[in-house]
Amino acid sequence: MQFTAHQISLLLGGTVEGNPDATVNQLAKIEEAQNGSLSFLANPKYEQFLYTTNASVVIVNKDLVLTGEVSATLVRVDNAYTAFSVVLEQYNTLKLNKSGIEQPSFIHPDAQIGDNVYIGAFSYIGPGAKVGNNSKIYPNSYLADNVTIGDNCTLFPGVKVYFDCVIGNNVIIHSNTIIGSDGFGFAPTEDGSYKKVSQIGNVVIEDNVEIGANTTIDRATMGSTIIRKGVKLDNLIQIAHNVEIGANTVIAAQSGISGSTKVGERVVIGGQVGMVGHITIANGSQFQAQSGVSRSITEENKKWGGTPAFAFNDQLRSHIALQRLPNLEKKVAELEKLIAELRNVSI
Amino acid sequence: MQFTAHQISLLLGGTVEGNPDATVNQLAKIEEAQNGSLSFLANPKYEQFLYTTNASVVIVNKDLVLTGEVSATLVRVDNAYTAFSVVLEQYNTLKLNKSGIEQPSFIHPDAQIGDNVYIGAFSYIGPGAKVGNNSKIYPNSYLADNVTIGDNCTLFPGVKVYFDCVIGNNVIIHSNTIIGSDGFGFAPTEDGSYKKVSQIGNVVIEDNVEIGANTTIDRATMGSTIIRKGVKLDNLIQIAHNVEIGANTVIAAQSGISGSTKVGERVVIGGQVGMVGHITIANGSQFQAQSGVSRSITEENKKWGGTPAFAFNDQLRSHIALQRLPNLEKKVAELEKLIAELRNVSI
Amino acid sequence: MQFTAHQISLLLGGTVEGNPDATVNQLAKIEEAQNGSLSFLANPKYEQFLYTTNASVVIVNKDLVLTGEVSATLVRVDNAYTAFSVVLEQYNTLKLNKSGIEQPSFIHPDAQIGDNVYIGAFSYIGPGAKVGNNSKIYPNSYLADNVTIGDNCTLFPGVKVYFDCVIGNNVIIHSNTIIGSDGFGFAPTEDGSYKKVSQIGNVVIEDNVEIGANTTIDRATMGSTIIRKGVKLDNLIQIAHNVEIGANTVIAAQSGISGSTKVGERVVIGGQVGMVGHITIANGSQFQAQSGVSRSITEENKKWGGTPAFAFNDQLRSHIALQRLPNLEKKVAELEKLIAELRNVSI
Repeated sequence: MQFTAHQISLLLGGTVEGNPDATVNQLAKIEEAQNGSLSFLANPKYEQFLYTTNASVVIVNKDLVLTGEVSATLVRVDNAYTAFSVVLEQYNTLKLNKSGIEQPSFIHPDAQIGDNVYIGAFSYIGPGAKVGNNSKIYPNSYLADNVTIGDNCTLFPGVKVYFDCVIGNNVIIHSNTIIGSDGFGFAPTEDGSYKKVSQIGNVVIEDNVEIGANTTIDRATMGSTIIRKGVKLDNLIQIAHNVEIGANTVIAAQSGISGSTKVGERVVIGGQVGMVGHITIANGSQFQAQSGVSRSITEENKKWGGTPAFAFNDQLRSHIALQRLPNLEKKVAELEKLIAELRNVSI
Repeated sequence: MQFTAHQISLLLGGTVEGNPDATVNQLAKIEEAQNGSLSFLANPKYEQFLYTTNASVVIVNKDLVLTGEVSATLVRVDNAYTAFSVVLEQYNTLKLNKSGIEQPSFIHPDAQIGDNVYIGAFSYIGPGAKVGNNSKIYPNSYLADNVTIGDNCTLFPGVKVYFDCVIGNNVIIHSNTIIGSDGFGFAPTEDGSYKKVSQIGNVVIEDNVEIGANTTIDRATMGSTIIRKGVKLDNLIQIAHNVEIGANTVIAAQSGISGSTKVGERVVIGGQVGMVGHITIANGSQFQAQSGVSRSITEENKKWGGTPAFAFNDQLRSHIALQRLPNLEKKVAELEKLIAELRNVSI
Repeated sequence: MQFTAHQISLLLGGTVEGNPDATVNQLAKIEEAQNGSLSFLANPKYEQFLYTTNASVVIVNKDLVLTGEVSATLVRVDNAYTAFSVVLEQYNTLKLNKSGIEQPSFIHPDAQIGDNVYIGAFSYIGPGAKVGNNSKIYPNSYLADNVTIGDNCTLFPGVKVYFDCVIGNNVIIHSNTIIGSDGFGFAPTEDGSYKKVSQIGNVVIEDNVEIGANTTIDRATMGSTIIRKGVKLDNLIQIAHNVEIGANTVIAAQSGISGSTKVGERVVIGGQVGMVGHITIANGSQFQAQSGVSRSITEENKKWGGTPAFAFNDQLRSHIALQRLPNLEKKVAELEKLIAELRNVSI
């Protein structure tokens, strides 16, 4: 893939400053760019690199005033950051432009496959499963009986979806993530062993959700584990049975949400956070990385941290005070002595 | 799958109250049930829903006294919860009723395959591997050389079992879990790099164990990493080399047990707990979520929490006191001043 | 595989003491060894077992002075530990001695496959991908377009490598690990939803790296996520986009490194550690398990622990003091009373 500065300016509705025939075949950060790279400058903090970069073409804001000599060809646009995002997206679309059904793959005769799909080799589409139009199922993936995948979805290699789960439109799921494994439900018996509680619910994932790699979302015991529209989940996350994650909530890697907990909308959860089961988290709540959340949060839009989690600023103060705790103990011991002396004097 | 109230009463040994021809084709919670659903009422707390539910058939206790009008057909049984569990199990058994060998799959001529098995497409059974009777190996799974799988096991899609590992009877392993990967063993060398210590042991999993999705159990350096009978492991758990987990112990998601640690029987470990290596945990111990266990526990049946873990109630008190620590610091500073004043007075 | 004491002595350059025809067909710890086992004694702490072991052959140090009767045949060598490591390695090499291309597999005509490779069944090698000489790609693995794998690498079953990623020589990657999934990058929009930021960089893994099972390493937004030579990563680790891990750094299971953080060389990171993004960690730093690292570390070779992490010994003292905190509160309350009394007296 090779483009000229002129072609890029046409794509972005920009104007060329320098050689319109300058060609690029890769994308790079302005400070790392080499000859043949296309780069961009949006943040004034990085302007210094514009005068030293080896990039062949740089996208800049229309109103940028140069303060030195630039060897790269410039493409001036209204908003360099947005324009470069458009280029990134185009690049990615070209890179992931797979279609057709590779062999060998396993497509059950009772499965329904939409138009313009990609089914990679060694993928398995079970009886009653549906794959929507323009969706991509990469190699080594598995869709069990009666799974529904909407339109414009991408399941990267090795994703496994258990029976009866429902996935909406424009959903991206990264490699080896599991949707619909059994919830962790066991009833203790008199001899100390546990009896499995059958997990016959499913997982419902709404539109525009993205899920990272090696994440696990368990099916509900009954009913559905639900991931609402626009949710973004990172890698290695655990979502237990009957959890509901509200719209546009974002969860960072290695966090875990225990069974039947209901997380609100627009919640932001840092990495390695844990939440106990059967609690409710108010809309707009934010949790610091490694928090442990042991009770429901009812006030919206507040920040929390620590284990057990309490108000973010308070727990920050507490954890800093914790560093001084051995000194505080010494000080109290000294005060004890002084008081004993005073009591001797005063009595 | 469609059943009448009459058929259900025959299966459960119950009696019908209402229309014996009422038909159901799905299972649902009583508060979410729609027309055509079978539901149950066991907990008196939910009795109110019995009078408003849209379920077509509800299983209830024999001795339930109605306090209002019910539109659903009732099936009365000795124990509604147990009876419904039987229905759930039947449902699940029908849903997972796969058998036969799908193509393409890879079964080495030196592998031994039992009777009435399911081998999914794109599964790999290596030389010397054995799969017991009535076991199900779902698609994209991998059994390396000389792996033994007992009778009545289910390996969901994408499970990988490394060479020489031994799995007992009635074991369930969820998708993409890894059994027998190399233990994390490296010897430092003089130049600062590390030399791999070969890991030639195996993993032994006893009967009636269930393991969640994306969990990892490393093989022993020598000897065996052992998961005793009846153990239940959740998703995304790490079990390091040469660990032993005692019978009927339960571990929640994202916990990790370091090398050579020996966990007792009937231990309950919450989510995101970490245990250091080379320690021993007494039978019946319980660990709060996110605990960090840094020493052996010798007393049985006690509760622990925090990092480093100490007695559960004590650490709860400590962590609540931690929230008041900045205030305590202020108070001590005030006392210091008061004492200084008193000393001025008394001297 | 069966060997005599004589054959083992030839392999190791040792001398036989006892029956040179004693045969072994397995390796075992000296305290667990059965008839037919080869074992070793290096640590004097275990010498007692030499006089009771059922091993048929034991490798011992040349200068070991016996203090009792030994039934096993001995092979005396300069260094029993090193010699046994050689045996372990040989054993492992024989166990993992796969080669050839199994069918069905998917090798794109534009892929380049080196000499003496193993490509397992149901593996996928995309267009432009390269696999170096003597490398092993186990079943159900996936190498996307333009992936490069060096010489002498082992990818265990189910590893997925996204497009354009580059892996050096002598690299081992365990089952179901993901290399090159999208970084977790989303831009908030005005309506509260998030817009994906395309992730077009790659992952570069240098020589002699080993990576555990079910670990995830995200591709860079632009540029590369880099794992330097000799790094050892355990299972279930998260490495975010644009992270760099310095040479010979070791990270234990379930730790996570957030985006753009740069970890130095020879760093040792315990299990379940979290690091925030955009920080720099000095060479030789060590982090206790479950630490939370929230700021850059500039001093080399120091130990850290706790959340937020501070000097290891200090945080140990603080966490022990935390256990006494409720008592400290009581003591301060008593001092308050005493001071109040004293003030009454003195005023």
